[in-house]
Amino acid sequence: MVNEAGWFSEVYPHHGSALSFKVIDKLHEEQTPFQRIEIFETEWFGTLMVIDGCTMVSDRDNFLYHEMMTHPALYSHPHPERVWIIGGGDCGSLKEVLKHPEVQEVLQIEIDERVTRLAEQYFPDLCAANGDPRARLLFADGVRFVQEAAADSVDVVIVDSTDPVGPAEGLFNAAFYRECLRCLRPHGILAQQSESPLFHPDLIVAMRRTMRQAGFSATRTLFFPQSIYPSGWWSGTLAAKGGFAPFREADARAKPFATLYYNAEVHRAAFAVPEFFRHLLADAEQEAAPSRSPG
Amino acid sequence: MVNEAGWFSEVYPHHGSALSFKVIDKLHEEQTPFQRIEIFETEWFGTLMVIDGCTMVSDRDNFLYHEMMTHPALYSHPHPERVWIIGGGDCGSLKEVLKHPEVQEVLQIEIDERVTRLAEQYFPDLCAANGDPRARLLFADGVRFVQEAAADSVDVVIVDSTDPVGPAEGLFNAAFYRECLRCLRPHGILAQQSESPLFHPDLIVAMRRTMRQAGFSATRTLFFPQSIYPSGWWSGTLAAKGGFAPFREADARAKPFATLYYNAEVHRAAFAVPEFFRHLLADAEQEAAPSRSPG
Repeated sequence: MVNEAGWFSEVYPHHGSALSFKVIDKLHEEQTPFQRIEIFETEWFGTLMVIDGCTMVSDRDNFLYHEMMTHPALYSHPHPERVWIIGGGDCGSLKEVLKHPEVQEVLQIEIDERVTRLAEQYFPDLCAANGDPRARLLFADGVRFVQEAAADSVDVVIVDSTDPVGPAEGLFNAAFYRECLRCLRPHGILAQQSESPLFHPDLIVAMRRTMRQAGFSATRTLFFPQSIYPSGWWSGTLAAKGGFAPFREADARAKPFATLYYNAEVHRAAFAVPEFFRHLLADAEQEAAPSRSPG
Repeated sequence: MVNEAGWFSEVYPHHGSALSFKVIDKLHEEQTPFQRIEIFETEWFGTLMVIDGCTMVSDRDNFLYHEMMTHPALYSHPHPERVWIIGGGDCGSLKEVLKHPEVQEVLQIEIDERVTRLAEQYFPDLCAANGDPRARLLFADGVRFVQEAAADSVDVVIVDSTDPVGPAEGLFNAAFYRECLRCLRPHGILAQQSESPLFHPDLIVAMRRTMRQAGFSATRTLFFPQSIYPSGWWSGTLAAKGGFAPFREADARAKPFATLYYNAEVHRAAFAVPEFFRHLLADAEQEAAPSRSPG
């Protein structure tokens, strides 16, 4: 909702704060079968898409999220040929994945076709690669898609979804992770957006535990700035089917494409674990320990 | 100013955005000879100090700024014994510096004594180390202090100031940097907060250039999240008198004190240069190049 002075605000009710954007114009608003989508022209952040009251993507800072949800996962895989993006309807992650020449096929499975159709209209830069013959856009339920997909059929699954409430809720649990694990080939990687390290550290810890319980052998979390998201600090969590292969650093250094944030140095840096998070992980391990011993 | 619904907002007029905090109570407000100080009890961020309408420090996230303005500089110096903090009136940086056993003396030169007196009252945690016999609190103009200080008398100068308008303006120019350089001993390091990489990248580039023009031999910028500051992403810039010594990584790994964000891994990570910033620096070098060649 835009107030009388022309500001759109996203309130973070559990964290006593709010972020506001000066709006020049409301470009679009609709209720789809899944969610309410609003598109604003803002004063400094450019075009801004809001879903169910939460900021999703802005012209100005989407490069941070899209680059960090894709390149670290792809350069952590020895040879990513087949990639699925669950969600990702704005096509920003798709565009980044398609920059990798070794990728042969990308399926994007977005539940709400309207997100993509509006992105094509209002975020043409993000959709510039949609015509790539390696890309296929499916509009379907990601949970069901993964349930019905063949085993050993994908190298990297990127879960680029909204928050774990509403349509995306089913993408944050062990049943979904088990299906992803089944679909991944050896060396396969699941990458999921995992909210704010400051606002939701417990969610990240729980996600990692659930991924391990679902059968993934290792997890790692990466941290990056994201101005329009709650707290301005965001994370993604990677889970590996058969342990993480070494970072393809030489390939990342020689990447044959342009980025605005990501590079090999940033890749290594993003995985540095802040001290408080290291303690949270250690505490979680300790809590989990008793259940491992019998009786 | 707090609106009728109980929210304090800081508006970023040049960046079409605003950050707001739900306020439980206004604890204090005063106009000092230098600036307007307000202190709020907020719903999630704890106690919040605001100076001239800009958020300065909150209970919840100050650890990020204070740890990153101190430990990277101190572990980048081979043996930091004498430290000055210019500004830093909330004493959060002072507390972090005093955690280093090799530090023998810390002078904090804050222009506005009221900031410190209010911090003692409302941020007792940040001031917990003020009684350390190695600490001396001076209330004086940092620019004049540095002008009058003896040459070769300090190892690390930390400029922990407000934005480069108002009382802090004189801390962001070549004349000040030259005086700092004169006061620094060999291996000396100047560390200064350098605003948001997203909102003010040109300021950071200009600061680095000005530091080099003032005679520093090398500069490096570190990046960290800071939720309550504009864009949620912040930076500090280090300048070395005689080139940077190797990072004391073994010492950082064995640090004899607790932190919430900083560790050796985070230290290395913070200096990773985002791709767009690398390009900005390269462009700045190129612009500067013609003036180096005669005619």
